[in-house]
Amino acid sequence: MTTTTEQTGPYRVIGTRPIRHDGVDKVTGAARYGADINLPGMLHAKVLRSPHSHARIRNIDTSKAEALPGVVAVATSADFPITRDQILDFAEVQGNARMIAENMLAKDKVLYVGHAVAAVCATSAHIAEEALQLVAVDYEVLPTVLTWREAMADDATLLHDDMTTYFRLERFARGDDTGVKSNVAGHIQHKVGDVEQGFRDSDIVIEREFETQTVHQGYIEPHVSTAMWSADGRVTVWTSTQGLFNIRAQTAAILSIPESQVKVVPMEIGGGFGAKAIAYLDPVAAVLSRKTGRPVKVAMDRTEVFVGSGPTSATFMRCKMGVKNDGTMLAGQIYMVYEAGAYPGSPVGGGALTGFGPYKMAHMLVDGLDVVCNKQKVQAYRAPGQPQAAFAVEAVVDELAEMLGKDPMEFRLQNAVQEGDRMPNGVPHRVFGCREMEEAMVNSDHNQTPLAGPNQGRGVAVGFRWQAGQASSATINVNADGTLNLITGSVDIGGTRTAVAMQVAETLGIDVDQIAPTVVDTDTVGWTATTGGSRIAFDTGLAAIAAAEDLRDQMAQRCAMVWEVQPEDVAFADGAFTCRRNPEDRLTLAEVAGRMMRTGGPLTASASATSTGVGPIFAGNIIDVAVDPETGKVDILRCTAFIDSGTSVHPSYVEGQMQGGTVQGLGWALSEDYTYADDGRMLNSSFLDYRMPTALDLPMIDTVVVEVPNPRHPYGLRGVGEAPIIPPLAALHNAIYHATGVRVNKLPLSPTAVLEALQEANGQ
Amino acid sequence: MTTTTEQTGPYRVIGTRPIRHDGVDKVTGAARYGADINLPGMLHAKVLRSPHSHARIRNIDTSKAEALPGVVAVATSADFPITRDQILDFAEVQGNARMIAENMLAKDKVLYVGHAVAAVCATSAHIAEEALQLVAVDYEVLPTVLTWREAMADDATLLHDDMTTYFRLERFARGDDTGVKSNVAGHIQHKVGDVEQGFRDSDIVIEREFETQTVHQGYIEPHVSTAMWSADGRVTVWTSTQGLFNIRAQTAAILSIPESQVKVVPMEIGGGFGAKAIAYLDPVAAVLSRKTGRPVKVAMDRTEVFVGSGPTSATFMRCKMGVKNDGTMLAGQIYMVYEAGAYPGSPVGGGALTGFGPYKMAHMLVDGLDVVCNKQKVQAYRAPGQPQAAFAVEAVVDELAEMLGKDPMEFRLQNAVQEGDRMPNGVPHRVFGCREMEEAMVNSDHNQTPLAGPNQGRGVAVGFRWQAGQASSATINVNADGTLNLITGSVDIGGTRTAVAMQVAETLGIDVDQIAPTVVDTDTVGWTATTGGSRIAFDTGLAAIAAAEDLRDQMAQRCAMVWEVQPEDVAFADGAFTCRRNPEDRLTLAEVAGRMMRTGGPLTASASATSTGVGPIFAGNIIDVAVDPETGKVDILRCTAFIDSGTSVHPSYVEGQMQGGTVQGLGWALSEDYTYADDGRMLNSSFLDYRMPTALDLPMIDTVVVEVPNPRHPYGLRGVGEAPIIPPLAALHNAIYHATGVRVNKLPLSPTAVLEALQEANGQ
Repeated sequence: MTTTTEQTGPYRVIGTRPIRHDGVDKVTGAARYGADINLPGMLHAKVLRSPHSHARIRNIDTSKAEALPGVVAVATSADFPITRDQILDFAEVQGNARMIAENMLAKDKVLYVGHAVAAVCATSAHIAEEALQLVAVDYEVLPTVLTWREAMADDATLLHDDMTTYFRLERFARGDDTGVKSNVAGHIQHKVGDVEQGFRDSDIVIEREFETQTVHQGYIEPHVSTAMWSADGRVTVWTSTQGLFNIRAQTAAILSIPESQVKVVPMEIGGGFGAKAIAYLDPVAAVLSRKTGRPVKVAMDRTEVFVGSGPTSATFMRCKMGVKNDGTMLAGQIYMVYEAGAYPGSPVGGGALTGFGPYKMAHMLVDGLDVVCNKQKVQAYRAPGQPQAAFAVEAVVDELAEMLGKDPMEFRLQNAVQEGDRMPNGVPHRVFGCREMEEAMVNSDHNQTPLAGPNQGRGVAVGFRWQAGQASSATINVNADGTLNLITGSVDIGGTRTAVAMQVAETLGIDVDQIAPTVVDTDTVGWTATTGGSRIAFDTGLAAIAAAEDLRDQMAQRCAMVWEVQPEDVAFADGAFTCRRNPEDRLTLAEVAGRMMRTGGPLTASASATSTGVGPIFAGNIIDVAVDPETGKVDILRCTAFIDSGTSVHPSYVEGQMQGGTVQGLGWALSEDYTYADDGRMLNSSFLDYRMPTALDLPMIDTVVVEVPNPRHPYGLRGVGEAPIIPPLAALHNAIYHATGVRVNKLPLSPTAVLEALQEANGQ
Repeated sequence: MTTTTEQTGPYRVIGTRPIRHDGVDKVTGAARYGADINLPGMLHAKVLRSPHSHARIRNIDTSKAEALPGVVAVATSADFPITRDQILDFAEVQGNARMIAENMLAKDKVLYVGHAVAAVCATSAHIAEEALQLVAVDYEVLPTVLTWREAMADDATLLHDDMTTYFRLERFARGDDTGVKSNVAGHIQHKVGDVEQGFRDSDIVIEREFETQTVHQGYIEPHVSTAMWSADGRVTVWTSTQGLFNIRAQTAAILSIPESQVKVVPMEIGGGFGAKAIAYLDPVAAVLSRKTGRPVKVAMDRTEVFVGSGPTSATFMRCKMGVKNDGTMLAGQIYMVYEAGAYPGSPVGGGALTGFGPYKMAHMLVDGLDVVCNKQKVQAYRAPGQPQAAFAVEAVVDELAEMLGKDPMEFRLQNAVQEGDRMPNGVPHRVFGCREMEEAMVNSDHNQTPLAGPNQGRGVAVGFRWQAGQASSATINVNADGTLNLITGSVDIGGTRTAVAMQVAETLGIDVDQIAPTVVDTDTVGWTATTGGSRIAFDTGLAAIAAAEDLRDQMAQRCAMVWEVQPEDVAFADGAFTCRRNPEDRLTLAEVAGRMMRTGGPLTASASATSTGVGPIFAGNIIDVAVDPETGKVDILRCTAFIDSGTSVHPSYVEGQMQGGTVQGLGWALSEDYTYADDGRMLNSSFLDYRMPTALDLPMIDTVVVEVPNPRHPYGLRGVGEAPIIPPLAALHNAIYHATGVRVNKLPLSPTAVLEALQEANGQ
């Protein structure tokens, strides 16, 4: 973190780099996380997890566990009153509450090794852990259906007996829309033009297949939740979450109580990357607290995080593209299979829009399947589903460029999508910086600097993401000394307290350190959707700007009263109000604040905003590698990340997101995967064995930020949190190809995999 | 607490008796008070207090205390950066921050026995207490000026060398306005007509003198505060207070930091009665936390509460009244002296308005003096300064009635103030129920039931209070299930969470249990003045009603959108919106809430309100006593409290306030006082020796509530928390007179005092 402030654009505050409001607390250890909650009389709960990947639960006998001294209560799915068909509005719960409940405590079946079955709370965590062994579960073991391939086999055992899928493809083929019982939970299709005609009109058509593995977000902080159910029926939950209102809705739905009876207090969060928007522990802690009348805390350890929370989908992609000899892209088709894990709901929708997003093509056909299997139920992971799709398309684009004898970036620029072009779903694009960013990649020092050694290669890739908007609320309270308290319900993962406060400071012409931004609980702020989708600086920014503008108008009225003029006679600029009729009448915002009690009382403003979407965003990577032909080991020599950030509110945060996203993408591509035994056990469920990259594995990630203001936001912001993870997988794949001449189409690009490919290419 | 609901007025919710939202938590012990705060690494502080009533501090040597193992830091006034002349706006700080600081940790002088001098924090409270003895203070002892009488003597030692008083009286007499150095800190005068002419025109004129003693509010919960100063300069304070924003302002002022750097979290409160609006411990805990980097808790014990916090003023009153033989009151004059204790600021202003408030008189002259002396700095105590004034005037009125041969209530009714009559400050009255309440007293079963035994007497008295208004804020957030979260910054002393929620429920046509009211911290709600002055149900009610109306209008717009009509086509009644153009279109509030995410996003509303004053309120008492002529012991046989409550929001709470206020007044009158040694030590600083009445000392207090709606509030509320304490002192005095034939004009009316008066009257 630098203390330098800079200001390059048309703004006073936007574009500078102030110290973050929560920085000191975090570096000094004063910030309070979920694990820091310790209440008088608190009990500790531990979760019993299934040893089977697929089994019917015949019976759970908790009597011996309950008899262990120190054990106070046991919870199973029988404690959740939610009914089978209870489905809440997606916007409220982000998912099917019944399935969330069954994933939290298995009901009739366990569906993966690690699936929670029961929870025991005791006077210490050690006693609770010991008691888990005394819970007797009678399982009827069923065949394991571990991967999408097994799940889609004709004779596959079904995970969900009653699950039927609405197959749009089949309806087209057969003229009916009968649901089919299978492990395929859903199908999404985007169609533009006539892809078959496009291929017929093409000079070159290639089709390639790609696979990615199950990988975890790898957030530092494990899941932890503490609940206190008061005798009056209200429950307070202190938890590590990205979405306090989501946890509230899920907890209320699963426990069948009104939302107003649940108060969710979001603690500081040690990473989420999308996966902490769902409840795993909160309703469990709540029912145990209700049973015991005492606060109950439940925390996962690292192995539980791996086997009991949600990684992202393993995928299969078949990508076919057709081009003219002059380099014009004509047609693209992609067939994508996303593993959802135990319950429906993979990020296939994100992937379906992303792959062909950067390209103008007359003909596109995207089919995506959502397939259940006996793995952990997947959750969102930074740009959910999108890196996998870009991996396939950008590798094919790279291969096509070589076949055409074109520089891969020139080929991309030739076909770069522009305003008015259609996305794969047919929606026309608006203003963005695809071309500007790709030109920055071409002109970058990195691209202009040749490689200088044997076994080296350079890979490039770009990524596109369309970002939706959701609702946020914000309240600003004015203090008599002119400082402001800014309240939001947006958990701060990436510096959004400061990024939102900066927008208020810009709007009101004051310094950002005059604003104290706070993230509050569900009781104390208007409904606010989860922190995710790169939307907080944008959406919560819009709500905060609206509140600031309301405040400015209220203050102008106070000035009008003091000066005995009409409100429209009051002008506002540079943090001060002036009277148009008498320019000597001038009051700064702080001066108006100081007089508020004498001019009508407290000044406070609340606003909610629901954006129509953050809009499109583009990111790119240039990566240089050296590949050891003896071992297959890939060394990343140089890596530059590019983005069109729209206006950068706080450039350091933008750069940080680019570096973090790129690193995660590189880990995914190089070394990470869930290694499963055939029976569905995860074999590498610790950070020793699950290989995330460390600082030693990577070079400094350089950043180049292009700023094409976003017309959907008054200061031109886009959301930068996710896009940087999209291109690295493909860029690394392409770099290895250019270093070795072999394409390794299956992740991770581990030494073993690269060496095997080299040996195969060499006929060994 | 009854669970019965009743509804007698024109309202659906107002006037019923729902269970209070915080009731279960409080009776089960789950509610969290200041003493319940325990943080990791927390230190405990203890306060060293002066053994001298008046002394100059030559030096404080803390080195030995700091050397004691376990002691982490020591604080003295040198740690407060506040400058001598720093005076903040009264509305913000409710007092002079410099004096508040000096009362918190003495600077140059100690001014009473118990005055805080230093604070030591250590790893345990016991070590901190031990270390207090190691703090060496070098005192230059000065003469004690214990009472107002000593303080006003010509040769009195001055407490404050630099204190000059603006003497309005002297200015009138001498034609100048030079300040005079003395222990008289202030003078207030109200003048209506020409009181000397009034006395000349009267047929009967009497003048009597009265004295009241120093008494304490006697709240159950001692003062306690915990502070955590973060390395980034923000300090969080968890405290027992009536006024979170006041504590914030005082803490910020005394520590010379912006208000936005201070977050005050109000815990549940175990009584305050006005005295917990001031900071005693919070800045001390804060500076110790800043020094140590750890959370610091400091709690008073009961003796510290008595000697180190603020009781109410001892007073002297000289009251002169003139009447015509027909009973018409012509003129009243009162000269009142209020002890302020160590620093200026007694409640003389309240007393000056109250005494003659219930009476229409052409000529009034009130002079009130605020006098410093070597006692604890007084603080507000329920209807501050008003019981003392009513004690004097109501005793004189009772004596005049007897001289005129009139029933005392008929005499009062004959002269009862009405709309348009002037208060002693010349301001005309508006609508209230003085006459209605006095008629209710006359017609009451109590008044109609004759006394039936020897040595018995009945006394009556009335009390008037004019209630100002201050600012409050409220926010309402809507949940998808139609429940509402109501947020205020008004600490709930007397059931105001529920009383305010009931007004929202009435406004929105829903049930009060659909609303979850929460009292939040200073970061999360608009500025709100202290809970006091009987203003919360009224002022915070106004803010909450305004927020509810805003919400109703927002919801009507959502309906208009759904029905594709104009907002003015949407009607609202009984908790539902209907379309004027198509009466079949109907949505309940809960249904609109359920659709909010699809009709524009979250619904939230904030409002602030600054009332122009709660207005006038009247209370009365009828008390029957039996006095034992052998011992002077007074037994209260029957006691009825009367009030014009305006509309009673929650009748149980009104009755509770009447009973509580009456009991406190009776304790004050009968048995309570600070017993001081000549050197200024308090001799009875425990609940064993300071005699508050218990349930054994008192009968059930009956209540009669008259409801004359208050035109200043949409539902007609007045504020009922304080008025009931005003009349009991005089009513008891009058009852004893009618039982014994002797008037005891000096409180408390203890057996000793009554017996001495009886013996004196009998020539013994």
